[in-house]
Order: sequence, then C-alpha cells, then structure tokens
Amino acid sequence: MAPKKKQKKAAAPEAEILDPEVVLKEVRRCRALLATQKPVDMSTVDLSGMRVVDAMPADDVAYAIEALFVAAAESIMRGESFKFDVPSRSATNQRYVRELDRIVLKHNASERSFANVGQVRKTAIMTRVFSLVHEVVTKGIHVTKRDLFYTDVKLFKKQEESDAVLDDAACTIGCPRSCLNVVAADKGLVVGRVQFDEDGDPIDCTRMGVTGKAIPAYIDKISNIRSDAEFILLVEKDAAYNRLAEDRFYNQFPCILITGKGQPDVATRMFLSRLKAELKIPVLAFVDSDPYGLKILSVYMSGSKAMSYDANSLTTPDIKWLGLRPSDLDAYNLPDQCRLPMTPKDIEMGKQLLKEDFVLKNKQWVKELERMLHTKQKAEIQALSAFGFQFVTQVYLPRKLRQGDWI
Amino acid sequence: MAPKKKQKKAAAPEAEILDPEVVLKEVRRCRALLATQKPVDMSTVDLSGMRVVDAMPADDVAYAIEALFVAAAESIMRGESFKFDVPSRSATNQRYVRELDRIVLKHNASERSFANVGQVRKTAIMTRVFSLVHEVVTKGIHVTKRDLFYTDVKLFKKQEESDAVLDDAACTIGCPRSCLNVVAADKGLVVGRVQFDEDGDPIDCTRMGVTGKAIPAYIDKISNIRSDAEFILLVEKDAAYNRLAEDRFYNQFPCILITGKGQPDVATRMFLSRLKAELKIPVLAFVDSDPYGLKILSVYMSGSKAMSYDANSLTTPDIKWLGLRPSDLDAYNLPDQCRLPMTPKDIEMGKQLLKEDFVLKNKQWVKELERMLHTKQKAEIQALSAFGFQFVTQVYLPRKLRQGDWI
Repeated sequence: MAPKKKQKKAAAPEAEILDPEVVLKEVRRCRALLATQKPVDMSTVDLSGMRVVDAMPADDVAYAIEALFVAAAESIMRGESFKFDVPSRSATNQRYVRELDRIVLKHNASERSFANVGQVRKTAIMTRVFSLVHEVVTKGIHVTKRDLFYTDVKLFKKQEESDAVLDDAACTIGCPRSCLNVVAADKGLVVGRVQFDEDGDPIDCTRMGVTGKAIPAYIDKISNIRSDAEFILLVEKDAAYNRLAEDRFYNQFPCILITGKGQPDVATRMFLSRLKAELKIPVLAFVDSDPYGLKILSVYMSGSKAMSYDANSLTTPDIKWLGLRPSDLDAYNLPDQCRLPMTPKDIEMGKQLLKEDFVLKNKQWVKELERMLHTKQKAEIQALSAFGFQFVTQVYLPRKLRQGDWI
Repeated sequence: MAPKKKQKKAAAPEAEILDPEVVLKEVRRCRALLATQKPVDMSTVDLSGMRVVDAMPADDVAYAIEALFVAAAESIMRGESFKFDVPSRSATNQRYVRELDRIVLKHNASERSFANVGQVRKTAIMTRVFSLVHEVVTKGIHVTKRDLFYTDVKLFKKQEESDAVLDDAACTIGCPRSCLNVVAADKGLVVGRVQFDEDGDPIDCTRMGVTGKAIPAYIDKISNIRSDAEFILLVEKDAAYNRLAEDRFYNQFPCILITGKGQPDVATRMFLSRLKAELKIPVLAFVDSDPYGLKILSVYMSGSKAMSYDANSLTTPDIKWLGLRPSDLDAYNLPDQCRLPMTPKDIEMGKQLLKEDFVLKNKQWVKELERMLHTKQKAEIQALSAFGFQFVTQVYLPRKLRQGDWI
C-alpha cells in the first residue's frame, strides 16, 4: 500500500526536510557554477552565414524602416522594381547552434517584388505593415497583432497573413518582433521573491496575494529588476502554480515562481530569459511527465522554429529538468491509477523528441525519455495530489531540492 | 472618405471631449440613480419552490458535509439505503426571476442511492468528493478542479465527471461552488482605480504597470476593497483592455478596467459582482458587436445555465451596454472593410438571443440586435483601430461617456 504510506509522510514531513539551509545546498552549488560560467565567446562560435537578431531601440527601428523605403525609392528611380529582401524563416534555413544552445537562421533570403504578379499582394501587405509599425514605434505605444490586422482587413484578409508578415518584417529589420511594439495576448503569471518597475510602477511580487502578477506583454517597460531568490521555479501549468503560490512556497525557499499556463506565450518566454540573464540563478522546471511537458520545456530553452530568428531574447539556455520525470513515477511510488497510458500520438511525439538536438545533448534526458517510451506511461504534476494536496510543497519539492535531483 | 476624416479627429480630438468634468456628467447621473436604488425586497419576490444558494463560511460547509454523512449513517442504521438528495440542475428545473434579473433553480431533486445499480458509481463519486472537500475546507486551503480529479483517477475516470459532481455537491450543501475551495483556472485581469487586500497583501491596481493584476481564483481572500472610481469598464477581450491599460485611461477618467479575456471564468464574474455590490458604481460593457459579445455580456449578467444555482455570487445585474453596438457601425462611419458578414451560425445565435429573457426585457437591446440581424454585419472592438490605434481611448470612449450613450 505505497500510496497510503506516502500520504502519512505528506501529513507529517520530516522536519529537517523543510530547513532551507539544508534543502538549498544543492541549489547554491548550482548557482555558484552559473556565476563562474563565462558567457559564450561569440568570436569562437562559427556564425558565418547566420542571422542573429538583437534588440533595437525604437528610434533605430524607425530609422531602419525609413532606410528600407529610401532604398526602395532609389531602386524605383533606377528604373528597377520596388522590392524587399526578406530572410527565409523556413526549416531548411535554420540551424541549431550547440554553443548558443538555440536555433538561429542561416542567411538565405528571397526577393519580394511588387513587379512580380505572384508577390504583389505580399509586397503590398509588407509595405502596409512597415508603415503601421513605423507609426507605432514613433508614437511609443504598443498594439496587439489583432489591432494591426484590423487597420486594414480588406488588404490583410486573414490575421494569419498580417501575423506572418510581421515576423518577416522583424526579420528584415533585424530585430526581435517585440521591438516592433506589436504584441500577442499575454497570459503568464509571476509571484515570489522578485521586484521590478513596470512603466514606472514599483511591483513587488512577494506582495501579490495568492495569484501573482500578470507578466506584461511589453517587456521593454520592465526595468530595475531586484531579487533575493536563489532559483526560479518554472511551472508548466497554473494548477501547480496556484498550489505553490497559495502555500507561499517562496517564503520558505527563496524563489521566483513563473508559469506560462501550458504552451508559453512570447511575453513569458522573454520575461524568463531576462530574469535568468540578469539574476544569474538556476532555472528549475516543473512539468508534466509526458512528451508535451518536454516539448514545452524545449520552447522555453531553444525557442519555437517559427521564431528562431528571434531566439536571443526569447530563449533561456540551461534549464534544469527537476520533475515530474518518468523515473519519479517509481521513485515516488505513484499509484497506478494516477499513471495514464500514453496515446499513439504521445508515443509518436516522444520518438520525435528523441531525435531533437536539445534532448540528444543531455544523456540523462535521453534516458528519461527512453524510459517513458518503454513504460508507455505518463503522469501530470497533479498526479502528486494523490498523496495529499500539499504533498508537492511540503515533501516532493523540498526533497528534490535537497537531493539536487534535477538533470 | 469617412475613415480619413475620423483619423484626423483621432490625432487631434477636441479638447472639451477630454475634460473629465464634462465627460463624466452622465456617468454620475447613472451612479446617483444606483445609489437611490433600493435592494430588491426579497419578501416581495415569489421564490416559493426556488433554491437560492448563499455564501457559507468554511466551518459551515464542513458541518453541512458532516450532517449529510450523519444522515446517511442514520439511514443505513434504519435499514434504509445510503443515499443523497441531489437538486436537479437541468434546464427544466431553472427559472429566470425578473426581479432578481437572474436564473434560479426550482426545487426538483432526485435521489442518488448506493443501493441503485444505475447510481452506485455516481454515489461513490459524490461520497469521495464530499470527503475531499471536507479535507480542503477544514485545512483552509484551495485546490483546482484538476487536483481534485487526480486524487482518484481510477474512480473519477474523466475530469468532467468529478467537475459535474462538484457542482452537484455545492448545490446539495446549498452554497456556491467557490465555498468548497475548489477553483478552476483563473484568467481575468484588473487595472485602474481600485485597491484591496489579497491574502493580507495590499494591492493597488493603479500601480500595476501596463498589464494589471491577475484576478484571483480565491475571491474569499479579497478584503477591504477601496475605490474612487466612478464606473467600471468591462472589456470583453484583452486586446482592447491592453490599449486602455497602456494609455492609463483610468487616470483621465477614474474607472476600473476588467477583462475576462473572452468567455469569462468564474473568478472574474465573482470579482465583478463583488465590486459592483460593494462600490455601487455603474458597470459599462465594451464588447464586440456580434452575437457572441452579447452572449458574453449575458453570462456576466444572468449567469450560465449550468451554474444557475450559484447565481447570487456570480451575476452582476444591470450592466449597461456601451458598445460596440450595431448602431455604432453607422454612427461612427466604420469603414466597410472592417465590417464582417455574419456567418449562418452567428445569425442562428442572434435569433436565439432574441428569445432570451435578458434581451427581451430591454427594448433598446432588442432593437440593436434586430438591427444586427437585419444588416447581417458584425464588427470587433478592434475595428475601431481603423481610425488610429488610440481612437478608442481618445475619441470613442470619451464621446460615449459624455453622451451617456449606453443602453
């Protein structure tokens, strides 16, 4: 009767397991390692033929757009066509760079010309998008993708078209999409030991009640990040986040809790990336033990393929996989009724992941994934509720932290 | 060229239109009316045969569950069956009460008996849910529906089953589901002129940056609500909310901005209901001009049918429909390309709404809806972006407010 036994433990966890000085030893070792880590020497990385975009101030974005139009005007004056050179964002134009631990774009570009009948519409859309972005950045405001689409429904027709061109536009200018001041809806949450200013307002995430602060879609409005946290706990879904937030887990073990509520939006990924870069503390991931949980982890780490041009501000390298790992299912005696059989789609996705660079470069990840595919069992974080609702905060996480049990 | 003309106005709106003293006159008249409104005298409302549930302290919930089990034990001792009397939540057991402006449950109940082969599983599930809820309320913690499901996957099988039984359980006890301390995920946002305490933390929504505060799923952790707002602006979707929040619309016209990001979750509906009840200020709704926008408005006002037993804490009567209304499309010369043709499904839904009590009791709403169905045109709030991204905050809303243009 393993579950019963665990349940008792949950009700009365050993005292020493909750002593932060004991529990945090491994976290501190990991943090010290991070501090000694030298930033990748870019001169040693072979980026020839690669396109790595970097953040740009609004003025530079406006200037870049003006330059594009001057160039176009000159091209017309020379009797040539009105055209843009647009970098390709297709998979064949992408490369995973091991040293940077992210996907970057190669230098393939294609011409988008107004004189070409097949491209005339796309060129017109792109021109309109550049002009709208110019308005937005010079006014210093932010708009949503939906706003942008609605300024000219007749031209754009579908929002997917203006969205796609928006990424092309960012890529052409050579900046992340966020620098265009066009944002998608935000949905991430943060709570715990971090303070920052948002558009001038001081935000203290230790005093954000039990829900926390909505992560802003406008990352450039965040400044002055301070924190005494020893690690960031990245939680896949809001149910587990809510449990940790209500129990004020961060008061016992100084940390920052972040969730992107499943598949993370751009704002949450940028926020995490920025926190890690500025605070230099370990990021520990708490995701479901299924291929989808690992996939989400990869989005945080290596970025999605569609936005690889923007990987610099969007990705967080070196996230540690804390749990829920396939080996945890047995290590914690998870009762059978909480383990779910993997669907054929799960298995297919798992096999696919076994071929991905971000998995292959970590042997322990490969082992865990192989174990999952072998047992054909998956489990959500919520499965730990079987040992009592507070098992996660009072037993599972403290033990994981104390043992430095992440890979 | 109406759009062009409007665009100019957006860039330089008439000064007087932005003077709060002028703009807010109609809002204040509406607010004064609210203040003189007497609460519905419940003794004059015929609620015979109706079930209206009310909030209960955690101790009472625990006690009610204990009483149910004592009753069940006694029934067994008498040699009768182990059973619960469960109120029916089906449509035939619901009634719209005009005086209360919401749906309530009639008194039909059915027996759920362990001795009945067809009901044995549901009775077992219900027993387990009662026992879990008892644990949660006595510990004073909150859990998500997903947590609850995962405590016994083998028994519950699908989350829909434990979710449905959860509503039955609340109904049987006679309290809103929120009093069981079992919550769904939260997704609403609030920003603007309101302060409150959340689990002891002071929250000032005027200083929440450009994103605002996540509305907590645990409404009972909110206390001490203060506000100098003159009205609440309820925004259907987050794109429009983001625009208003970034422009700090609430600084110019003292108000509270709330969005449920589309179909609102329970937490957002409870939060709005509580704000309106405590602050006694008008609630103005800013939704898309389509049947879905109106449907969402109805969920805020009259509740969803599945949770009608819980309407008291979930509904906000007397929400004013500010915009975007079908008549606005012509009144504001919305360019043709921003008007979308209604789909057959839209039209079907619109016709359905024309039969609903909450529409029928307001002749102006009927007129607007008929107009929509006649023109077969719909438009999202975002369509106003055609006049410039800040048209909404600088022209449209100030004019609407000044003219008292809501119904």
